[in-house]
Amino acid sequence: MDMSSGNLNWSVCLSFSVIVNLICIMLIFSNKHTEKLNWTREAAIAAENVASTSCSGHGRAYLDGLITENGRPICECNACYTGPDCSVIVPNCAVDADSGNPMFLEPFWKQNAGSSSIMVAGWHRMGYEFEDGSLISKQLENVIHKLHETVGNANTSNKYILFGSGSTQLLNAAVYALSHTTYSSSSSTKVVASAPYYPVYKSQTELLDSKKYKFSGHTSSWRNKTRNDKFIEFVTCPNNPDGRLNKAVLHGKFTRHIYDLAYYWPHYTPIPAPMDEDLMLFTLSKLTGHAGSRFGWAIVKDKAVYDKMVEYVDLNTYGVPRETQLRALKLLNVVVRGDKKEMFRFAHTVMRSRWEKLTEILSTSKRFSMEQLPSQHCAFSKQVRPPSPAFAWLKCEADEDKDCFNVLRAANIIGRKGAVFGVENRYVRLSIVNSRDDFDLLQQRLQDLVSKDRSIVQAVTSL
Amino acid sequence: MDMSSGNLNWSVCLSFSVIVNLICIMLIFSNKHTEKLNWTREAAIAAENVASTSCSGHGRAYLDGLITENGRPICECNACYTGPDCSVIVPNCAVDADSGNPMFLEPFWKQNAGSSSIMVAGWHRMGYEFEDGSLISKQLENVIHKLHETVGNANTSNKYILFGSGSTQLLNAAVYALSHTTYSSSSSTKVVASAPYYPVYKSQTELLDSKKYKFSGHTSSWRNKTRNDKFIEFVTCPNNPDGRLNKAVLHGKFTRHIYDLAYYWPHYTPIPAPMDEDLMLFTLSKLTGHAGSRFGWAIVKDKAVYDKMVEYVDLNTYGVPRETQLRALKLLNVVVRGDKKEMFRFAHTVMRSRWEKLTEILSTSKRFSMEQLPSQHCAFSKQVRPPSPAFAWLKCEADEDKDCFNVLRAANIIGRKGAVFGVENRYVRLSIVNSRDDFDLLQQRLQDLVSKDRSIVQAVTSL
Repeated sequence: MDMSSGNLNWSVCLSFSVIVNLICIMLIFSNKHTEKLNWTREAAIAAENVASTSCSGHGRAYLDGLITENGRPICECNACYTGPDCSVIVPNCAVDADSGNPMFLEPFWKQNAGSSSIMVAGWHRMGYEFEDGSLISKQLENVIHKLHETVGNANTSNKYILFGSGSTQLLNAAVYALSHTTYSSSSSTKVVASAPYYPVYKSQTELLDSKKYKFSGHTSSWRNKTRNDKFIEFVTCPNNPDGRLNKAVLHGKFTRHIYDLAYYWPHYTPIPAPMDEDLMLFTLSKLTGHAGSRFGWAIVKDKAVYDKMVEYVDLNTYGVPRETQLRALKLLNVVVRGDKKEMFRFAHTVMRSRWEKLTEILSTSKRFSMEQLPSQHCAFSKQVRPPSPAFAWLKCEADEDKDCFNVLRAANIIGRKGAVFGVENRYVRLSIVNSRDDFDLLQQRLQDLVSKDRSIVQAVTSL
Repeated sequence: MDMSSGNLNWSVCLSFSVIVNLICIMLIFSNKHTEKLNWTREAAIAAENVASTSCSGHGRAYLDGLITENGRPICECNACYTGPDCSVIVPNCAVDADSGNPMFLEPFWKQNAGSSSIMVAGWHRMGYEFEDGSLISKQLENVIHKLHETVGNANTSNKYILFGSGSTQLLNAAVYALSHTTYSSSSSTKVVASAPYYPVYKSQTELLDSKKYKFSGHTSSWRNKTRNDKFIEFVTCPNNPDGRLNKAVLHGKFTRHIYDLAYYWPHYTPIPAPMDEDLMLFTLSKLTGHAGSRFGWAIVKDKAVYDKMVEYVDLNTYGVPRETQLRALKLLNVVVRGDKKEMFRFAHTVMRSRWEKLTEILSTSKRFSMEQLPSQHCAFSKQVRPPSPAFAWLKCEADEDKDCFNVLRAANIIGRKGAVFGVENRYVRLSIVNSRDDFDLLQQRLQDLVSKDRSIVQAVTSL
């Protein structure tokens, strides 16, 4: 072996080794930011492990779900699916179109997992109050202002914002505040709504049997009778259950309005113009789909009303959990980032397509009809938009179908009875905001029901 | 240069390079588990960045706090500290001993950051209900049973558990439920408490002016007068403000009790035996210090009462946020792990030492006195324990010091007036559960006040 060939071998080995060195060093440096992870690592790994559990697209595992004896997360399946990985369809299962569970937005948040998750430290905001003594995150308040400005659905300028445990808590906080800040000779306030109305207005107003206010039925009974009485009218726009853009009916001197705008988002309705009312309620549940987070907010013009609402929330629950506020902040920051339309495009596309499918199925039926909603100009999307409501408000047209709920129940569809909304049981509300599995099954069941009816009609006609 | 010395050089270089390679490869493999992090990485890094903000031990930065123009987190300083890193003491600052903000537990959670933090995915539990249709995490319910069994402060077997937005929400839920499930000829229920009492019992009961119940003052006014009337008595054990282990005072046929056991933990009192009452309330605020999480629970014996409480929480807020339940689960799992005493040791050590310091300072004073609490056997620690209450219940003994709050206020100490608790203003509550900075300052101010009084007395005596 001569000297040069010896050196050649060494130099090949060394070159190879140096190249490996460089690659390794690059790898280490490219991982520098993960190396920094210290106390967050355990929680991050736990979350990724649970998220990677396969549930066949018909369910998901959660961090606080049940686990197997081996410590593996157990899938929680969508309704009508079962089995360890949710791959088995439950035969003849009744589809749940009762609850307005906004699971149709879950895929959006799965697609945006990286930007929408939060790491809550064990020592995160343990105290009762924020630094300014309030119960409200200033950053979250700011992003809510920005959100409404972006969407153009509510004018928030020169108005107060407070938070509640869902708009649920704020409904009663508003009734309390308005009944204490409206002064007339009458001591008790009548609380009313236009039928069909969201049933919680009644049940919540009646819950504590207050001397100050009383649920007093439909607005239609009180038209032109509001001279000296105090009224609080719930105005729901778009209306739950029928999707109409309701307006206030009563206009007496001592009448006050609570605008429940839970569904006044581009997913569910064209937005003709920003609302600019004295008391408006919104909820995260229907905006981002996070119903489980129980986060709502009120936009209030009058300082005295705002103060009374704050008093109610303080004494009732002492504010909204700080981890919920942190999460709402993160989610809303995703909503208003970039071109500010990403989530709205996703949500509207789903809702519109579902409505079109239902309309098509029911268009051939004489037994059932659905609410007719107009196409309208939407200032947010800058175009005329057809309807895309959260619920189908179904009517059984046949004389004998007085109990429409049972007609549907017999076809394995669970809706919500008209009586719950203050109208006859000829009406049923069907939720179309649920998971895709739920909607697909609802669609199939309705299709079967309508086809069966049509073949009976054809058979009768051909006799 | 001869061949062997050339080869030697090459071999030295190659050996060095190979060693570097091996080290690099080891480094890469030791980082393997962090490399797996995918969608959780962004949130984890954000949380660690904020946590690493230096606030001189007198404050902390939060994920949802304000940021500088350069995007750097801004410290939120403890009271009486200021500056960008909380290193500046505010001169003549009034110390806040008003709020019972349990920040003394913050250091424990900072020490246990790794095991107590949670990663909440954007799609975590978006729906209204858990899989079983309830609003309650089964895993969390289980750990609460385990917790009480471990501590031995409450018998939960054969009882129902429900959750609320702090025990705050559950206080009124309990009043609602008991007034609806106790049947006597009297339609309205009298709600009472033994003075000094926690002021929310009164203000919350009066908030909605219900026809069903009415706050009716002190138990002492109703002793031996309970024959046909319906009573709900709040029994607070240990009592807020004075730390006594209160027992029920009224025992009529139609009298029901709500046991508020917020402070019935080994931090604040010896635990003589497990409570086994029909309706007991607890809160995370005073157990782990997470007051901002607004999480409480009720342990209820009677199914009808439990059902009514569930109805109240459903209609009032539709349950406790799912991210709060997830966090409570994580925190309580830390509490009951290992020898199950780690957090209790920490908490008791702090509270006991603070009480000893206050006792020592005030032992030399004739102007002020504090509640005297007995040492008792504690079944949890298996030893006789001296008191370690959450509050000092101070009395100004001098005839002229009728307004004890103002006496302290003049010495830059903010307490809470006796009148708030239904007694004379000769009493003031001082919170000793706040941050260490707050306590240190309180201690110093009290020391100054007592020393000043003593020197005046000495000067007068020597005249």
